Amino acid sequence: MMALWMAKLGIKARVVDKRADKVFSGHADGLNVRTMEILDSFGIGERVSKESYHRHEASFWNPDKNGIIRRDARAPTSQPDLSRFTWCLLHQGHIETFLLDAIREASMSVHIDRNVMPSALRIDEEQVARANAHDSKQSPGSEGTKETVRARYLVGCDGTHSWVRQALGEGYEMVGETTDSIWGVLDIVPVTDFPDIRIPCTVRSASEGTVIVVPRENHLVRLYIQLKEVSTGSGAADRSKITSEVIFRTARRILSPYSLDYHYIDWWSAYQIGQRSGNRFSKLDRIFLAGDAVHTHSPKAGQGMNTAIQDTYNLGWKLGLVCKRVLRREVLATYELERRRIAKQLIALDQKLSQLFVGRPAKDILDETGVTMAEFEKASRMNKMFTTGIGIRYTPNLLNMSDEDQQQHLALATNCQPGTRFASHRALCQADARPWELHHRMPSDGRFRIVIFGGDISRPPQLALVNSLGAWLSVSLQPRFLVLSMPGAASKFKAARDPSVIDVLLVHSAPRERVELLTDLHDVYHPFDDKLGWDYEKTFADGHGRAYRGYGVNDKGLGAAVVVRPDGYVGLVTSLDEVGRDRIGKWFEAILRRG
Amino acid sequence: MMALWMAKLGIKARVVDKRADKVFSGHADGLNVRTMEILDSFGIGERVSKESYHRHEASFWNPDKNGIIRRDARAPTSQPDLSRFTWCLLHQGHIETFLLDAIREASMSVHIDRNVMPSALRIDEEQVARANAHDSKQSPGSEGTKETVRARYLVGCDGTHSWVRQALGEGYEMVGETTDSIWGVLDIVPVTDFPDIRIPCTVRSASEGTVIVVPRENHLVRLYIQLKEVSTGSGAADRSKITSEVIFRTARRILSPYSLDYHYIDWWSAYQIGQRSGNRFSKLDRIFLAGDAVHTHSPKAGQGMNTAIQDTYNLGWKLGLVCKRVLRREVLATYELERRRIAKQLIALDQKLSQLFVGRPAKDILDETGVTMAEFEKASRMNKMFTTGIGIRYTPNLLNMSDEDQQQHLALATNCQPGTRFASHRALCQADARPWELHHRMPSDGRFRIVIFGGDISRPPQLALVNSLGAWLSVSLQPRFLVLSMPGAASKFKAARDPSVIDVLLVHSAPRERVELLTDLHDVYHPFDDKLGWDYEKTFADGHGRAYRGYGVNDKGLGAAVVVRPDGYVGLVTSLDEVGRDRIGKWFEAILRRG
Repeated sequence: MMALWMAKLGIKARVVDKRADKVFSGHADGLNVRTMEILDSFGIGERVSKESYHRHEASFWNPDKNGIIRRDARAPTSQPDLSRFTWCLLHQGHIETFLLDAIREASMSVHIDRNVMPSALRIDEEQVARANAHDSKQSPGSEGTKETVRARYLVGCDGTHSWVRQALGEGYEMVGETTDSIWGVLDIVPVTDFPDIRIPCTVRSASEGTVIVVPRENHLVRLYIQLKEVSTGSGAADRSKITSEVIFRTARRILSPYSLDYHYIDWWSAYQIGQRSGNRFSKLDRIFLAGDAVHTHSPKAGQGMNTAIQDTYNLGWKLGLVCKRVLRREVLATYELERRRIAKQLIALDQKLSQLFVGRPAKDILDETGVTMAEFEKASRMNKMFTTGIGIRYTPNLLNMSDEDQQQHLALATNCQPGTRFASHRALCQADARPWELHHRMPSDGRFRIVIFGGDISRPPQLALVNSLGAWLSVSLQPRFLVLSMPGAASKFKAARDPSVIDVLLVHSAPRERVELLTDLHDVYHPFDDKLGWDYEKTFADGHGRAYRGYGVNDKGLGAAVVVRPDGYVGLVTSLDEVGRDRIGKWFEAILRRG
Repeated sequence: MMALWMAKLGIKARVVDKRADKVFSGHADGLNVRTMEILDSFGIGERVSKESYHRHEASFWNPDKNGIIRRDARAPTSQPDLSRFTWCLLHQGHIETFLLDAIREASMSVHIDRNVMPSALRIDEEQVARANAHDSKQSPGSEGTKETVRARYLVGCDGTHSWVRQALGEGYEMVGETTDSIWGVLDIVPVTDFPDIRIPCTVRSASEGTVIVVPRENHLVRLYIQLKEVSTGSGAADRSKITSEVIFRTARRILSPYSLDYHYIDWWSAYQIGQRSGNRFSKLDRIFLAGDAVHTHSPKAGQGMNTAIQDTYNLGWKLGLVCKRVLRREVLATYELERRRIAKQLIALDQKLSQLFVGRPAKDILDETGVTMAEFEKASRMNKMFTTGIGIRYTPNLLNMSDEDQQQHLALATNCQPGTRFASHRALCQADARPWELHHRMPSDGRFRIVIFGGDISRPPQLALVNSLGAWLSVSLQPRFLVLSMPGAASKFKAARDPSVIDVLLVHSAPRERVELLTDLHDVYHPFDDKLGWDYEKTFADGHGRAYRGYGVNDKGLGAAVVVRPDGYVGLVTSLDEVGRDRIGKWFEAILRRG
């Protein structure tokens, strides 16, 4: 994800990977709905969705009075009101392939070295101080099989045993605990009569432990199997005892009386649950840590790959735009502010879930040491919004206007809270009536977006308000900052001019046929290009009032302007009048460099 | 499309193309909703849809009292109740690329020769007679730069001036007329203030002629421009007078007072409208003609590429399954029966539309020689169902059970009429609750499908009916015929056994949670495979009653069985009882060879 941002923005970058190739089997497989939206913003959401298992239901199995497992409950897991995506399950190797394809397609600025290990890290602090004032050039130099890479920035995405984190030394230790609970993992094509093998489910047997069933693409099913026998009382488990046979036999006992066999096994592993995280995610805002390098936990909530992707999705555009000298360096501090809190929340969630998963099923309502179904369901429900990725909220900082500043402004778009992701709703393109998911007009291209909810612009005063704001955006705001040159070969269909780093979209609530794009509206809502003519994809009508309802904007009111960060999170909500202009101007002045 | 079917079915085939490469600019660009469904059945619908312009609205411009063009009417053109696709516009070259990719992915059985022309065609009629009884081997032999290809079958998809058609000689002439109306075509990125440049529209000026605007992908717009000046009174036009400048200046005059310029032109051409078709589409059911080789007409209704794709989509599976010795040769006669009638209907439609397009706009209601807006709209409306491709209906033949045979059966599924395409509606996978478009479980893989609308199988008598039918399908029907070996490299996820040529899908209307797939239902609804276990993707629940409503089946009734041909057209509708079994058995006996 980090490399993809660099490629998208045309930043010269180098990936050093000790692995010889992408992952071919095992490892992560869960994609929450926010990760799906993020992948889709780079154009690979459909490929992932098409090949994935889609999660729509979960079930819970517990022992009955005779100790025989039976289905206790079913629960729908899809939330169509939350996102157009559902949870997807697909092997990490496919996702890596799609990311690699997207990197190659975006530009040639990223070089990937495999089979390469770092050996030493030195931070030239004097250089950092100088560079913070005036950035110097990066210059790699080779020395036989060793090479010295001089880089302005370094991001350690190198996993639990992060070499970069260790090289940073004191203050960068991981904090937390390792439990004595050992789990095995099997990726198999099961041959079984267990009825819910194609539904994600938790099977808690009377005394043999718990199996978690995670269906996947292409007939595969992942089973997480609690290994009670090899779990030791304290310290590290005896791993030599664990074989795929041991894990498989345990799964069979837990799923009994149902049969379980397989012809094909794709991967197996075993792990001991540890829940740890780092306190510092960056050093001097020059070296950053992301993913498992700063938070490790069990795979139970399916958050590992998601959190890692979302860490670097948060950091990538900031680093890229700083390198392009568009964004102020101060913004880099928001990476740690925003993502460390998420990591801590995740660890707390995982500790809670892990206890529930290993707990003995309660025999009845009077069984106080057992874990009841109700406790289980409650925990799942409470964490649902967090684990979808949609419930995440970044607290106020430079990028997210704080609540107290703008109580009356927040009321203008009640479902667009600063620090939360800007949702996608459908609106009709003014020029051709095509319904678009607004997310599809907001790709991850490094640009900020101001979404203007213009209200009913068939009313002349409202149209005047929108056009007056448009004139200010185009004459005063956009020219203050640098344009964003985009990588990619010159194309006959490329616009003649590089676009502003601030993109403007208009969504009005007037009947579409009562608006004439070219004559009614200011040019900023349909920018002109010498080669391509007018831009017909910036102005949208809220076809059936659904978009306005979705975003919480009154379609008969004075409208609202929502500033959306390049990663799709809301930065600011404000009015369309002069107060709003002032707030928009200040927000951008605080983070963008003057052009 | 023909080559794609051959590749899908693993039939050894050779494409001989005089062109050096695929089309790079110009030619066809319209994909009607049925073509989109067909492309999607080969897995390339999403790629096409993603890159295309989507048509949702049309507008009509006519001169006002002062002779100035103005928008007279808008009309929505998308019909969400008809199909999940809308009309798409995309350059033919992209579509060829997607087809070529799909051919390569399907198998290695198709070889494409470019820069190659046929020089002679000889039919060995004795051999044909022998082969019809007992097929002989195909054997190509080379002779320097000339080569003799011995083939069992030949399909001429070689356009208006078809060499194959000419080689067939007498009886294969095209019948029809050439009008004196000349049109120019421009593919440009327009720089214009004409308001509806991104909406398909017809602009009829007072005296300068007509422009048809067809927006496309990637900022391109195609303009069809009536060239009144160069249209001669009779016979062929003087083509030397026609340049892109002449065409462009004409377009400008018609669109005046709006401005029209361009920086980039992709292609231009001019054509004289002819409406002709062939009376014979095959010779001895060994040589076939398809596409422009048997019907040519104006591009006005956007039917050229669609009809060609649908011709070969109709023929391909028949020829492929005959080559595989699964289907009886008699079925090949249905190609001409079904497609010739469509060609004739298309020519009639085109003649009518062309007259309307070149007619002078009526000045007012008393202007009898002019064409009124009402006439125009009426013609568009009447032809809408035909031009979408969905309204096409094949008349009764071997493959489409005739109406009089089955009045009471047709009432079982009122929206599944034999000879029409089986629509797609959503149902939930019984095993995992995922909603599927049924079309996505019915890919173009050469298999027939029996869709069993099982009704409310939570009622024991209905479940017994469905299971008793299931036993008959699995024990009596499927084993009568050959299995269908599919091409493609051996994969670890490939089923151990080749599937029956008759695939069975069950859609029930019981509440999903009241059905247990593995224990309630006969194995035919979840077939077992030694390597892959049970098949979880054959049985569906009608989540919200929508699928049953869509297909016109009573969800409280006794159900219905619908036999669907490999090209997605309904062959037979019948009951689930013994009468139904008998009818299903006879239908298949008439067309399939015994295994």
